[in-house]
Order: sequence, then structure tokens, then C-alpha cells
Amino acid sequence: MKNQNEAKSKKRKYSIILGNLGNTCDRFLSSGYKDPLDKELMLDQAASIEGVTGIELVGTWDIDDKSVDKMKTALKSRGLVCSSIIPDLFARKQWGEGALASASASIRRQAVAEVNTMTDIVVELGGNLINIWPGQDGYDYPLSADYLQERRWMTESIAKCVEHAKKKRVKIALEFKMKEPRTHSYLARTADTLLVAKDIGESNVGVCIDTGHSFLAYENVGESVAMLKMAGNKLFHMHFNDNFGSWDDDMIVGSIRLPEYFEMLYWMEKTGFNGWFSMDQYPYREDGYGAVRSSVLFLQRMHKLLDETGLDKVEELIRQRDPVATSAFIRDNLIAQ
Amino acid sequence: MKNQNEAKSKKRKYSIILGNLGNTCDRFLSSGYKDPLDKELMLDQAASIEGVTGIELVGTWDIDDKSVDKMKTALKSRGLVCSSIIPDLFARKQWGEGALASASASIRRQAVAEVNTMTDIVVELGGNLINIWPGQDGYDYPLSADYLQERRWMTESIAKCVEHAKKKRVKIALEFKMKEPRTHSYLARTADTLLVAKDIGESNVGVCIDTGHSFLAYENVGESVAMLKMAGNKLFHMHFNDNFGSWDDDMIVGSIRLPEYFEMLYWMEKTGFNGWFSMDQYPYREDGYGAVRSSVLFLQRMHKLLDETGLDKVEELIRQRDPVATSAFIRDNLIAQ
Amino acid sequence: MKNQNEAKSKKRKYSIILGNLGNTCDRFLSSGYKDPLDKELMLDQAASIEGVTGIELVGTWDIDDKSVDKMKTALKSRGLVCSSIIPDLFARKQWGEGALASASASIRRQAVAEVNTMTDIVVELGGNLINIWPGQDGYDYPLSADYLQERRWMTESIAKCVEHAKKKRVKIALEFKMKEPRTHSYLARTADTLLVAKDIGESNVGVCIDTGHSFLAYENVGESVAMLKMAGNKLFHMHFNDNFGSWDDDMIVGSIRLPEYFEMLYWMEKTGFNGWFSMDQYPYREDGYGAVRSSVLFLQRMHKLLDETGLDKVEELIRQRDPVATSAFIRDNLIAQ
Amino acid sequence: MKNQNEAKSKKRKYSIILGNLGNTCDRFLSSGYKDPLDKELMLDQAASIEGVTGIELVGTWDIDDKSVDKMKTALKSRGLVCSSIIPDLFARKQWGEGALASASASIRRQAVAEVNTMTDIVVELGGNLINIWPGQDGYDYPLSADYLQERRWMTESIAKCVEHAKKKRVKIALEFKMKEPRTHSYLARTADTLLVAKDIGESNVGVCIDTGHSFLAYENVGESVAMLKMAGNKLFHMHFNDNFGSWDDDMIVGSIRLPEYFEMLYWMEKTGFNGWFSMDQYPYREDGYGAVRSSVLFLQRMHKLLDETGLDKVEELIRQRDPVATSAFIRDNLIAQ
Repeated sequence: MKNQNEAKSKKRKYSIILGNLGNTCDRFLSSGYKDPLDKELMLDQAASIEGVTGIELVGTWDIDDKSVDKMKTALKSRGLVCSSIIPDLFARKQWGEGALASASASIRRQAVAEVNTMTDIVVELGGNLINIWPGQDGYDYPLSADYLQERRWMTESIAKCVEHAKKKRVKIALEFKMKEPRTHSYLARTADTLLVAKDIGESNVGVCIDTGHSFLAYENVGESVAMLKMAGNKLFHMHFNDNFGSWDDDMIVGSIRLPEYFEMLYWMEKTGFNGWFSMDQYPYREDGYGAVRSSVLFLQRMHKLLDETGLDKVEELIRQRDPVATSAFIRDNLIAQ
Repeated sequence: MKNQNEAKSKKRKYSIILGNLGNTCDRFLSSGYKDPLDKELMLDQAASIEGVTGIELVGTWDIDDKSVDKMKTALKSRGLVCSSIIPDLFARKQWGEGALASASASIRRQAVAEVNTMTDIVVELGGNLINIWPGQDGYDYPLSADYLQERRWMTESIAKCVEHAKKKRVKIALEFKMKEPRTHSYLARTADTLLVAKDIGESNVGVCIDTGHSFLAYENVGESVAMLKMAGNKLFHMHFNDNFGSWDDDMIVGSIRLPEYFEMLYWMEKTGFNGWFSMDQYPYREDGYGAVRSSVLFLQRMHKLLDETGLDKVEELIRQRDPVATSAFIRDNLIAQ
Repeated sequence: MKNQNEAKSKKRKYSIILGNLGNTCDRFLSSGYKDPLDKELMLDQAASIEGVTGIELVGTWDIDDKSVDKMKTALKSRGLVCSSIIPDLFARKQWGEGALASASASIRRQAVAEVNTMTDIVVELGGNLINIWPGQDGYDYPLSADYLQERRWMTESIAKCVEHAKKKRVKIALEFKMKEPRTHSYLARTADTLLVAKDIGESNVGVCIDTGHSFLAYENVGESVAMLKMAGNKLFHMHFNDNFGSWDDDMIVGSIRLPEYFEMLYWMEKTGFNGWFSMDQYPYREDGYGAVRSSVLFLQRMHKLLDETGLDKVEELIRQRDPVATSAFIRDNLIAQ
Repeated sequence: MKNQNEAKSKKRKYSIILGNLGNTCDRFLSSGYKDPLDKELMLDQAASIEGVTGIELVGTWDIDDKSVDKMKTALKSRGLVCSSIIPDLFARKQWGEGALASASASIRRQAVAEVNTMTDIVVELGGNLINIWPGQDGYDYPLSADYLQERRWMTESIAKCVEHAKKKRVKIALEFKMKEPRTHSYLARTADTLLVAKDIGESNVGVCIDTGHSFLAYENVGESVAMLKMAGNKLFHMHFNDNFGSWDDDMIVGSIRLPEYFEMLYWMEKTGFNGWFSMDQYPYREDGYGAVRSSVLFLQRMHKLLDETGLDKVEELIRQRDPVATSAFIRDNLIAQ
């Protein structure tokens, strides 16, 4: 019986953010490094990646209230489901100086309405997760923001989104990022974000860890996962990518690091995470399909190695608290012989 | 009436960590860069710094159960008070692999006992604040610690210290630091530490912000102060120093930054902080007395500029949310004409 | 006589990059945070900033072979001169995988031709400086570039630009930046760039220090200026902005730091720098005119304080090698009383 | 014949820094985390690590003019050779404010003499390499050093060491490190150090790359190796360890990163590096022997994978300049199946 349950829990759900397959720009080359891709082709590509069953959509870029039916059909015909919608709170000029924490009550209302609309849409698409990344909510300069007031607005706005979502049985994951596009964001790190979720105090609000955002903040993702477990299953969603540790480079998973990925997957498994393993990258110059697929394949390999090792053996290792034993484990189990 | 109250609130309390005046070492020069100083001389120096009335003592280094009476006399004779004791949880071999979160139940008990002893001593010295910096509680390598278990131990141990301190009417400030001497600490940032304090849930447990630790974590201290206010006056203590932003360089205050210091002092004032402004530096090569005094003088200058400006004018500025206005303010009010 | 010479040398030349006054975008909001500004209005604004006499133009964005005459007239009518042209090697899809160090010989030829065209244009505009920022020349991932080959191509391409410029009596300043838009650039830091300049070995090739790029690389700009002096007056150009030390935030000068700016201006003066003090910012959300003007005013204030202090007094200070004396100097000379 | 030559070139020389096996301290626990180890035992341990034939000695800590004969015998009896001596320019109070670049001419003379003595000793021990790490040569605060003067002294002092070493047919490797124990070092990065070596212009002066120092400076070690090749075989020595990218954590090799190690070994091989692969760690709490041996085993595994892959195949890969292909290569060749 145990094995059956275990096997069931091992049925992991992989997902990708649709836009990762398309064109990407930066502040120097605003038209982007590649040509825009047809959305249907991107969906075909997504569906063709081994083991990928979920698609994460970004508001404005991928979905709005006019394109719901079309997207519903497009997903269904490919056997895909909507793993989450990320409401657009960052890609329109109106959010430029803040959205959920904007000093303008009108903008805050619009931002909440935007999230709520996406909540309704995700239900229509058969999904149950909204991932809020409030990229414009923060500040750039010292002595240029009223932190006390703006942080309160932030919490109030999110609380309204959570309340609406609760009625629709939708979960809200809050995605933090220390900086960019602001030099300082209000949802900056795991603990900051957990504090906001706890202040709101509803069961349908939790945290999304983007691995790159966590590395950027010098967090250890495995520890962040444990921290969210201690607060009561508050890890709602995961975004995967890699970076060099000092910026959100949004690279292919496993391009730099190895043991950290293995460790975080262990902790997700150990703490009963049953959400989506979703890819979130910015393949500026490289082929989008290839880059996203590479990340999925890397994670699946790590999952395979984790399954072969078994949770007990990893637990035994970490309880030794001995970096020499850990190094032997890495050589024996994670790198090529 | 208002002015009188205001004047009263402006009676700020400056303090220094005694050891800052003495010899300091690093991992390459373990005997230290200077000669050891006589403790009585250090106390004389401390007492001679304009406006300094508090002394922060470090367990083992400055105080233990045998030297209480002597220290009490030494402080009193110089008109100094004990602003806080920092229990030694980092400078003995026994704490090398952890103290409050050690995997050894015996070590955890000893660590709690150490804190409690210092709580008793601080009361004897007429003080009411213990500053816990659990420098050895954390880990160094991925896949080498059981975060879930160790973070629970951490909270349990601190809860015991808080309980004991409560009976003695002593406050416990938890001082965070992202890294060093471990590559990762369990009390890493403002929000992480506030979460632990909230989990314990007693009124006598709060947070100490060391400005350098906050800069190291890419926090904005002003925002951290506001965050602790939102949680209900949880800023218990302040340590001051400056750095280049990527390590705890423990430099003289104001050696690099300017507007950030002014801003954090504004927020402390605004949120009713009435604790100590305590200097915490590591003057490896420079004269300890001169270095610590320089920091005090810098802070007093900033306080003077803040008083002359007035809270209202700063509030007006930050509500403009306009970096151009902020830049003009800096030129007109903070830098030399 | 000495005073006259000194007064003459104090006639500092301030400049701005024209595009700083206009719209700016990032990877999330590609249409930009503001509305596009009319170029004539931007030139009016530039001309109205106290003490600004130079305009730095960016290829493609501000100038091409069709708009030379118009720009010439526009500058002249406002009493402005062209302080430099920054050839566009970063803002067209064709440079996306490299320009001067591209693996394609054809792209490298086009990149050299682009620079040479701008060299001809700068002469027509009455200027004598080309500032090369090869933003796309670098790589993103380990194991994805042939450093040896690409660095050779880089040097060869620049050598060709230098050769052409030499005939036209134009100087080439090489602007380094550790990263962005690539995760790693070939011209990364002061010393790396100086090495390339020395390899080319012509008198008309030198280095541009962008203060923010230097901070990002954990350089001390004052020391970098001294390093370029030791190699024989190799500091050709300066770009000014501020940041938090871990990204090219491109903020208003003096928003974070103070003594470092004073120090670098001292070293420029001390080493006989007689080029442009040019502003290079990215005022995403704040008013462009106000942001750039604020930087100019801050620098002018620092220059005034430097003149009042005198080089001798600063030299005396730095030769004390005493951070306590430095701290007193900062309190007495740089911050408000 | 080719294969024979290739096999010969594959006879790689592994070495360790002797002190890594002993006790290590930091600024908080100056007595160290472990008990001091007997030097003979440390040598036994070193000799027992598979493939290790070289020992790197640190002046003062491991060797002085009185212990030469004893060390010579101790090494010989264990079949070990002296891979290099690192003169002590950092672990005595006299070097606290600088050694080779000290403002005191007397200290500079002593520092040069110290290096020269070690040069003589290394010859007696049968070695031919001195590794200079001038840890105290730099500065801590802005406006507290005369960079121009001190950098000149630095170069002059090193030139004297190089001159003496040349007569003895000894090579001098200059080891850079951006910071620690000073906040800024004069030998900070690969290019900075290469510039100094080129200024001196002797064939027996080159660079030592400590991988952790390079990561700390956001360098890509593979690229740094290529840069030193371009300047004419200027990579003289290698120190190996791992870190999290923002401090010299001195961890076991391969604890964090994977592809970067493989890449740098490729470039060393490709550019004909025939020096020592020497371990340089700080196993504060973990077993020294186990930690150092783990690094050696990791590197040997990487070398084995490199040999099995072959240089041609790696070259083919990097010339594709395609991160997707690189990701497939990592999955197929570097991580466990």
C-alpha cells in the first residue's frame, strides 16, 4: 500500500510559462532578440515537451477576457491544462509607479480588479491558481516612498484579491523578487512574503518560490521550502530557472548549480508539495523551446535521481550534518561516473 | 505641551559595544591587529565620548558571573549604564556547530542557560535588554542540515530564553545576519527574524537591526523599521556601522552612505523608537576610540539635521515619491553648501 | 600665474547623454514608462541645464548618416557641442549575439563599419571622441563560448576602429561593464579594458569609466582613475550615475554615496583629466530633465567643495591613511553643518 | 606517438596547502574551531590522499629558515614535493597596514626580504614556485589611501622579488583576491594582476587563479585562463575551492557548481597548463583531511570526464555557442544518468 501511495505522490506535474517560448526583449533592444512566435505554434511546442501538462499564462501577453474561449479550446485540444494565470501588474504603463501598492486609490482598485478578472478567467479555464507577481510595487530611491503606508495598501489590496478568489475556490500564490523592475520590491523574499500571507490569514493565500529570485536574495531554496512548511503548507507554487546568484538571469535550470536543485526537490517531496513544477525563464538569444525543454529534462533527471536515492537516504545524509559525507554523496549519486 | 513632549522624545540614548574599543582579529591574523587594551581604559574612553551613556557588553569577552560586581562599580563610577548584554553564543569552541539550534540537546540547554545567566546579570547591572546574536546557528553547505528540525529547535530555545527574561522584566532583541560565521544563518533578515518573534508571541521579544547586516541583505533599513512597526513596535534595538553592501565590513558610520542613514533615523523617530542607538564596529586597523566616536558624531549630526528639518517636512518629501525632489532635498539639507 | 592656470584647469566640461531625457523601457514594459519626447525639446532641455555644454549622442537612437546636418544645426543653434557619439552596437537585432566579437565575420565587419561611420559623423559634428560600449559582446552561459577566439576578434575589431579614428584625429574610449545585457561581457572592468587598449597600443585608444559600472564590479573609482593614469593618461571619458552596488541601477548621482564621488573627482583633478563629465542615467519613472539636472548640480557641488578644500589638503588627508581622520574630514567638509 | 604525448600531458599534478588539514579560526572564534594538529600527522594525511604529490607551505605557519631541513626530510620520506611556498605577508602584526605596498619603506624592505628568504628556501626544498598573496596590501575606506603611490610601491616591491627569484630559477605566481582582509586589495582580479605582471615584464612572473577569488569577482575562470594564455602562458598556478559567489567561503570543490569546473579544466588543458592543481580551502568545522580529499576526488572525476569526452568534442560544443546544446551536454556527460 505504501508503495502505491508513494508511486501516486511521485506523479509530478510539470508546467511552463507560455511566453518563455516566444520573443524576449531587454532595455537596450526593446523589439526583442527574436521574431514574435505564433501563439498556436507555441502551444504546440509546449504540448510536445515530454511530461509537460500545464501552461501558465500571463495576463495581457497571453490572455484577456476576449480570448478566454479560444484559449480554452486551444489548451483542451492539446491535452493541456492551465496551471496558473499571472495577472499583468507590470507590463502596462498604468502600473509604472505601482499597482497593488500604488499611491493612487484608483490604480489600486484597477489592480485588484485585474487580478479578480484573471481569477474568474482561470476558473473558466478549469484552473485554480493565480500567481501574483507585483513587480512594480516597491520603490527605487531612499527617501522617496512611505513604506508604512504603501505596505499597508499592499496587504489590503492582496486581501481583497484573496477574498474574491476564496469564493471561487482559487488559491493565490504570492511571488516575491527582491528587485527588478524596482530597485526594491515590497514582496522581496520568502519570509517577507510569508508575513504578508499570515497577516491576511486566509487558507487560500500562500507563496510562490521562483528559484532564481531566491538565489538572488542569497536564500537557500531548500530552507525556504522548510520555512513555508513550518507555517503550514504555505508553498503554493514553484518557478524554476538558474542564475549566477546576483541577478535574475532566468537561465536554463542546471546551467550553474547542481546540489541545490537536488536538495530543494528533496524538501518539496519531504514536505508534501503537490503543486506544479513550472519553468520560468528568459531565453533572450537561445531557442525558447529548446531552453524550456532542457529545464524540464534536467528537473526530471533530478527527480529520477531523488526517487532512486529515496527520501530516507537523503534524510540520513542531512542529519549527519557532515559536508564531507555530502561531498561523497554528490560524487556517488549526482555526477557522472 | 507638544513641544515639550517632542523635546523629551529627542533625548536620544547613544551607546557603544565595549569590545569595539579593543583589539580585533580576523582569520589570517588571529592574534589581532592591535594590542589588547585594559578594560578600565576602554571604559574611560567610552565615558569620554560626547553623549554616550550606554555600554553594551559581550558575554565571555566583557562579562561573566564572576565579574558582575566589578563591572557594576566600573559602570556606575563613570556614569554609564548597561544598555544590553550580548550573550556569547559564538566565541567558544562548544558553540562551533550551533548553539540554540545545535543538533545536541545538551548544547542547546547550555546555550539557553548561557542566555538566562546573562539575563540575570543584566538585571543586576540595572539593565533590561538582552541582545541575542546566534552567529553559529545556521549551516554552511547545501544538503548538510535538517532545516525543519533545526529551525524548530531554534524557536524552542529562544522561547525558553524569552520566558525566563519575561519573569525578570527583560526584553530580548534578536539580531539577524544573513551569513558569517556560517554561510547561512537561521536568523538571516528582518522578516525572517520577525517571523520567529511572532511565532513565540511574547511582548518581550523583538528584533535588533544591525545596519550593516541589513545592507548586506540588500534591505533598506528605513523600510525594515517600518515593517517592524507594522508588527507592533518590534524594533527593540539598533546597531550602527557602515559597509560596501556585500559584506559585514563593520566600518565607521557614514563612510560610504548618507541619505540612507538620514532616512532610517527619520523612520525610527516617526515610529516612536525609544531604545538605544548603539555602535557596533570592527576597527581592525584604525584607532578604536576614534572610530567609534566618529560614528557617534556622525549620527548626532544626522539627528541634528533631522531635528532642524522636522518630521513633517520629511514626510511631505517621501509622499511626493519623486526622486528629483529627493535629490534636491539631499543637496539642500544633507550635504555641505 | 599659478592661480590663473589653476582657474583655467577648473573650467570643467559637463555633458549629458541625450536619450536620458527621453523615454526608457525595460524587459517587462517594452513600450517604456513615459511617452516619447520630441528630440528638439530634449535639446532645449539639455541646453537649459546650468553648465552643460556637451551632448553625447547614441547611434540609431539619436543620429545616423541622414540626420547629421540637422543635428549639427540643432546643436549649434543652442550653443552645444557633441561631446561624443556612442555607436549603436547593442540596440539592433543584428548585434544580438555579438558585434565586434561576433562569430560571424560579416557581423564583425558591419560593427566596425558602424563605428567608423560614427567616427566620420562625429568629425562632421565638430567632435573628437567616440565612446564604444560593446554591450552584446560577451556570453551568457558557461561552456557556450570560445573565449580565446572571441577575445582575439574583439581586439582585432577595435584595432580597426582605432586605426580609422586615428586618421581622423578622433579618440576612442572603451566603456566596460561587467554584465548586462550579457551575463558576462568581454570588456568587463577597468583593468580588462586597459589590457585591450594596451594590446592595441595606439595613443588614441583609452578607457571610459561609467561610475555605476565600476561600482557594480566592486571597483573604487578613485583607484581606477589612478590605475589609468599609471598606464599613461588612459582615462578618456567619464559617465556618471549612482547605484546600490550590485546592479547598474543608473540612478541620480549622489542618491546613495557621497565620499566616493568626492574622492574620484579629486583623482581626476590630480591626474589631469580634462575630458567630459557626462551624465548617463536611466530615469525610468522620474522626470528625465530633473533627474539629469540633479546629477549635474550634485557634481558641481562636489567640484565646488573640492576647489574650496584644495588638492593639497586632500592629498594630506589620504597620506594619513587614517579612516578616523577621513571621517572627521567628511563631517567637516562634505556634509551639512 | 600522439597518444603517448597526450598520455604524458595527462599526468596531472595534484597538491594541497598543508594548513588546510589543521585548525582554522575566524574573527569570532580566534582559537579556532578544532584542535591544532601535529604537523607530522598532517603530512601523513596529505601523503595518503590518492594522487596528491605536492605540498604547498605557508611561511610562518609551516616553514621558516630554522625548519627547512626538517621539512625537507619530512617531505622526502613521504614521497612528497614542495609545490610552492606562500610567503607570510598577512599573518603577522607587522604587515597589518600593508607589506609590499606599505607606506613604510622599512616594512616594504622586510616584505621583499621575507619573499626572497622563502625563494631561497623553496630552492632548498627542491621546488621552483613562490605564490605571493599580498592580503594586507590594499585599503579599507574611501579617501584613506594614495592609490597612485601605493600601487607603484607594490609593483616595485614585486619586481624586486621577481628579480631575486629569476636568479634562482624560481617562478613567482601572483595570487589576486578582490577583498579580505582589506575591503579592497591592490591585486584584485585576473586582469589587474596580469597588468602588474606585464609591467614587470619578466618571464618568471605570472598569475595564480584561486577559483573562489575568481568567482567572488564575478569572473568566469575559464575565460580568465584564456585571458592569461593570450598574454603568453601567464597562468602559473591554480588554487581550488568553491563558494556561493559573494564571499571567499573556501568550500569543498563541487559543493555548489558543476559546469564551471569542467569548463575551466578544459581551458587549462587546451592552453597547455602544466602546473599544479592545488587545493586551498578553509574547513572551519568539517574534517580537514576529508574536506581536502573530497576536493581532490571531485577534480579527478572531472578530469576523467574531460579525458573521456576529449578536447575536440568540447571545442565543438563551445563553438556552437548554443546554451541548449550545452544543457544537453551537461545532462549527457556531467550528471548522473
